[in-house]
Amino acid sequence: MSDRTMNLAIIGAGRIARVHAAAAHADPRIHLRCVADIAADAADQLAAEYGAVRGEVDAVFDDPAIDAVLIASSTATHADFLERAARAGKAVLCEKPIALDIERTRAAVDVVNANPVACALGFNRRHDAQFRALKSQLDAGRIGRLETLTIISRDPAPPPAEYVGTSGGLFFDMMIHDLDMARWLFDEPIASVTAAGSVLIDPAIGEAGDVDTAMVTLVTESQRLCHIQNSRRAVYGYDQRIEAFGSGGMLQAVNETETRLRTTTEAGQTEETPKHFFLERYGAAYARELSDLYDAWSGGAPPTATHADGYEALRLAAAAARSLAENRTVALSEIG
Amino acid sequence: MSDRTMNLAIIGAGRIARVHAAAAHADPRIHLRCVADIAADAADQLAAEYGAVRGEVDAVFDDPAIDAVLIASSTATHADFLERAARAGKAVLCEKPIALDIERTRAAVDVVNANPVACALGFNRRHDAQFRALKSQLDAGRIGRLETLTIISRDPAPPPAEYVGTSGGLFFDMMIHDLDMARWLFDEPIASVTAAGSVLIDPAIGEAGDVDTAMVTLVTESQRLCHIQNSRRAVYGYDQRIEAFGSGGMLQAVNETETRLRTTTEAGQTEETPKHFFLERYGAAYARELSDLYDAWSGGAPPTATHADGYEALRLAAAAARSLAENRTVALSEIG
Amino acid sequence: MSDRTMNLAIIGAGRIARVHAAAAHADPRIHLRCVADIAADAADQLAAEYGAVRGEVDAVFDDPAIDAVLIASSTATHADFLERAARAGKAVLCEKPIALDIERTRAAVDVVNANPVACALGFNRRHDAQFRALKSQLDAGRIGRLETLTIISRDPAPPPAEYVGTSGGLFFDMMIHDLDMARWLFDEPIASVTAAGSVLIDPAIGEAGDVDTAMVTLVTESQRLCHIQNSRRAVYGYDQRIEAFGSGGMLQAVNETETRLRTTTEAGQTEETPKHFFLERYGAAYARELSDLYDAWSGGAPPTATHADGYEALRLAAAAARSLAENRTVALSEIG
Amino acid sequence: MSDRTMNLAIIGAGRIARVHAAAAHADPRIHLRCVADIAADAADQLAAEYGAVRGEVDAVFDDPAIDAVLIASSTATHADFLERAARAGKAVLCEKPIALDIERTRAAVDVVNANPVACALGFNRRHDAQFRALKSQLDAGRIGRLETLTIISRDPAPPPAEYVGTSGGLFFDMMIHDLDMARWLFDEPIASVTAAGSVLIDPAIGEAGDVDTAMVTLVTESQRLCHIQNSRRAVYGYDQRIEAFGSGGMLQAVNETETRLRTTTEAGQTEETPKHFFLERYGAAYARELSDLYDAWSGGAPPTATHADGYEALRLAAAAARSLAENRTVALSEIG
Repeated sequence: MSDRTMNLAIIGAGRIARVHAAAAHADPRIHLRCVADIAADAADQLAAEYGAVRGEVDAVFDDPAIDAVLIASSTATHADFLERAARAGKAVLCEKPIALDIERTRAAVDVVNANPVACALGFNRRHDAQFRALKSQLDAGRIGRLETLTIISRDPAPPPAEYVGTSGGLFFDMMIHDLDMARWLFDEPIASVTAAGSVLIDPAIGEAGDVDTAMVTLVTESQRLCHIQNSRRAVYGYDQRIEAFGSGGMLQAVNETETRLRTTTEAGQTEETPKHFFLERYGAAYARELSDLYDAWSGGAPPTATHADGYEALRLAAAAARSLAENRTVALSEIG
Repeated sequence: MSDRTMNLAIIGAGRIARVHAAAAHADPRIHLRCVADIAADAADQLAAEYGAVRGEVDAVFDDPAIDAVLIASSTATHADFLERAARAGKAVLCEKPIALDIERTRAAVDVVNANPVACALGFNRRHDAQFRALKSQLDAGRIGRLETLTIISRDPAPPPAEYVGTSGGLFFDMMIHDLDMARWLFDEPIASVTAAGSVLIDPAIGEAGDVDTAMVTLVTESQRLCHIQNSRRAVYGYDQRIEAFGSGGMLQAVNETETRLRTTTEAGQTEETPKHFFLERYGAAYARELSDLYDAWSGGAPPTATHADGYEALRLAAAAARSLAENRTVALSEIG
Repeated sequence: MSDRTMNLAIIGAGRIARVHAAAAHADPRIHLRCVADIAADAADQLAAEYGAVRGEVDAVFDDPAIDAVLIASSTATHADFLERAARAGKAVLCEKPIALDIERTRAAVDVVNANPVACALGFNRRHDAQFRALKSQLDAGRIGRLETLTIISRDPAPPPAEYVGTSGGLFFDMMIHDLDMARWLFDEPIASVTAAGSVLIDPAIGEAGDVDTAMVTLVTESQRLCHIQNSRRAVYGYDQRIEAFGSGGMLQAVNETETRLRTTTEAGQTEETPKHFFLERYGAAYARELSDLYDAWSGGAPPTATHADGYEALRLAAAAARSLAENRTVALSEIG
Repeated sequence: MSDRTMNLAIIGAGRIARVHAAAAHADPRIHLRCVADIAADAADQLAAEYGAVRGEVDAVFDDPAIDAVLIASSTATHADFLERAARAGKAVLCEKPIALDIERTRAAVDVVNANPVACALGFNRRHDAQFRALKSQLDAGRIGRLETLTIISRDPAPPPAEYVGTSGGLFFDMMIHDLDMARWLFDEPIASVTAAGSVLIDPAIGEAGDVDTAMVTLVTESQRLCHIQNSRRAVYGYDQRIEAFGSGGMLQAVNETETRLRTTTEAGQTEETPKHFFLERYGAAYARELSDLYDAWSGGAPPTATHADGYEALRLAAAAARSLAENRTVALSEIG
């Protein structure tokens, strides 16, 4: 079974599509067959680079030679393509989010549930080596019962203020990854969300109706606690850490650096800054994400992150946004 | 001026009094003159160890040869002794808290204000080398403008459940130190407090009406954010860390260990556990605290932590307790 | 120029050939065309895995469609294949050593010099991210003038004693990498070598005429000093570190771990053991090594490590062996 | 027994005498009774600071009220004062070295052996917390059988070239500490010494007949290996590290810093430089050294480092100097 080649089509030819294409090429079990994009030139170029052909988006879903579709097009197209892939019986890896509103997401999730395929959602952090190791140690009982989580996530630089208007804002485009991490690590439903948020970096972000700095507290159904911190700007790079505390100790996944070189001068003992941004930090995670889809497609077990996880993370983001807007704790039962 | 010897009386002969006595003895500018305690034997023994004499509590305040009084007796006596010291014109270092209720504390603060003396409050963490260095780097602008703080404080083992009945509970006996750290580092009034708390360690603590695990979010008047985490039990020792994040970078004060020995075996690369508890971690801080009182007494500048700081930290603890009880954000303006 | 595809033949189908094949496959600029091995089955299997074909060793050198040959066959064949590749005008990457004796190596080097091709020698550590960064910082003057080097290299487990009979022994099969590192980092001829060696791990290694633990001191022509340590067994994994000390400070390349997860329990604060052995630690270096050959082939600059470097490192190993045998400092001028 | 007060006289009132005086004052079991120095003013001042009196050197040895003598005067006086202290039956802590030449040292050692008193030699590193912990882990079998040692010792700045003329040079004034560490940790006689040395920092040191950078290899009688590195100048501070490698793993005692604050900016993740020099790094070790003398005086067990250790370390330094001068390995049996 593991010897079968999975024929892959990628929809999209932008930055993230390129990352997936390289990962697909490097995996001898996967054959990148075609790249489809509304920008034919970009599709041509990316396809040529890896010995693939350009395809038409519409044709991808009808082509029996395609086993799996990777949706890396613009957010507004995700839900539609996801439904089409499921209806066509293709394995699918969909970049997050499925959609920005809960109803549209719910509808797409229903379609996938009605047309069961191997459906993976692009929560790349579940494939990060640090966080996987942390999860694995948790599951092995290394620190006894998990009691609290601290998730810190800071981007190197804020997006243009225009972006936050279309992205849904910090809770939807950024913290949603952290909310998914909390769900994944606790492995238990979240009961409530309380959010604080400020505009400390760029007033234009505030004028666009968003915050650039946030702190959120989650309480699980069994009263375990999680704290999430987000900032849109860390001058030292991409800050991605998780600390898990439990009855038997603590696990800490810290930032990666390109090398572990240590320089000692009169100025101190210095290690490199953290890897710059998600392409650097999560480069290997993208490869594992695709390998995980291959395993689901060939072996039948569900992917590590599914459409259902996408839906639940979105509910948490919506709860956080409402908590901030209404300055109160929001129960998850109020959402979706 | 700095050559004057400060004659000190210690009230109390328990564990913390012993720490102060050793620090006083080691400082050639301070002369430990007497130790007073309701347990005369304990006072005798401690006095003898450092070449001091046993004194009577009542006589201490009247003795013109005494320059400074260190109040290390039981909590219930603090406010009264503090007022007597101030009225007698003695410099004073009072262990925290002044009192558990806000009104009694306010009254004592008023007495000290009316009788100005060098009045230091025992917030020992302000004298910890790590946190002082962090504060000093903040003040020097090393990370630009401070935006968020993360304060983690975990004790090695929970107290007996009986204790939390008399101590005021986690917010008053434990988090109060972290609340003071937040005030000190932000150097700006706190506007609101939101608390979450759980009983995850010892059900008896819950039955006594307290929590053993807590997460609190503070918002300053200029909308900067702080998160505080407390746990009553960390199996690996006393966990005392602060992370300050700002426009220009990040400062992290991490745990100290007895030595920096690194052991590498098949089991991994291992450093020691953090220092066990406050006597180990803050041993040197107690000495600096006394030296700070000396400086205030001899030089006239106020101590690093004063009676006013004790009062404000107490208000924050009360706000946190109310927030947890009422499951809502509490504005500081509601308290005291 | 950088768009040209380099058609590659690999001679050998063993463990190290597999590593190179995967690296070649993942690089879109390189086309793995054939695999040749005296074991036809192994060659067939490896070729099939990456869409290549099996080739005959003799045919490889005559095939005009082959641009580059990667020699990963048994040591005894290296010099001969290297000469044939050079005479055929192929770019070549030859695993180390060219040969175990200096005369045979010298002859092969002469052939390559007479038939100039892009000729890379498999000193994989020159492509390790840590050591490259260290070298780059040195070259940039980060620590002023380099004065001393400390190179520590320990294998996870000793080879069978039979192996050291055929490998030439510790100085030739193990320390030769460290000797090459010293040459590369100093960028200056070594003047003398002094070796100490002991049998502390496995008496059978001593009976086979080798040592399992060694310390060597190098002095460069300008009197700079280098110390190299080797052990055949480190229970915690592959220990590969370099410390460079100079007039302006110190650079330290430390061990890599699979993840940076930190586990804190009553037993201490623990990070993972170093990566297990060379395939884990130098996996990415093999890919860079091939990329470096591509650059030399396509661009004309010499590879990072050449046949000449192989010859010089062998001279140093021979000097170390003689120093140990004769218990005296050996001048490089005595060798080769 | 442990309640007895040890009455101490310090001979010398310079920098190192001041460190000892502060340590003596802080230990409630020790009474600093007098300070004697040829510079009466300095003795007066130091005595006054700690409530002691000035004494005459000659009188110190006759005074029955003095239990112990601490010799912190100039090197040339050590052997004589040590002999007088032993003959007077005083416990003694003598700063190193006893003398610079082996014969004089041997004679003083013979006198102490003939007049047995608690006799401690000022090898302060044996009292350093890091190195004590390393030794203790070694003795507990934490890394199985010790096989190799690496001792790195670098001063922050070179002494004036004049100094090396009177100090005996690098092997005698600096490496002697490292040689003592090797003896202490191996707990086995050293069989041979091989030294390399260069003038890389200050030509004036070379003109004075000394080296400023050295690498030495020791071989123990059971063929275990040790490497020692010295440099007279490390711009980042006092570099004092030991790595012990054995059949079961590795122990590393790394540099201490004043605090463990970590600063992360665009320039990297930075910790402080190592503590500046020996007063900073070994401050606590001086206190433990005196406490160790107290224990020997009150309890009868020998001090951690004795006059015999001073003699043996001197032999090793002499062997290293001869090795460098004659460019050959020197057997310890050739010395003294």
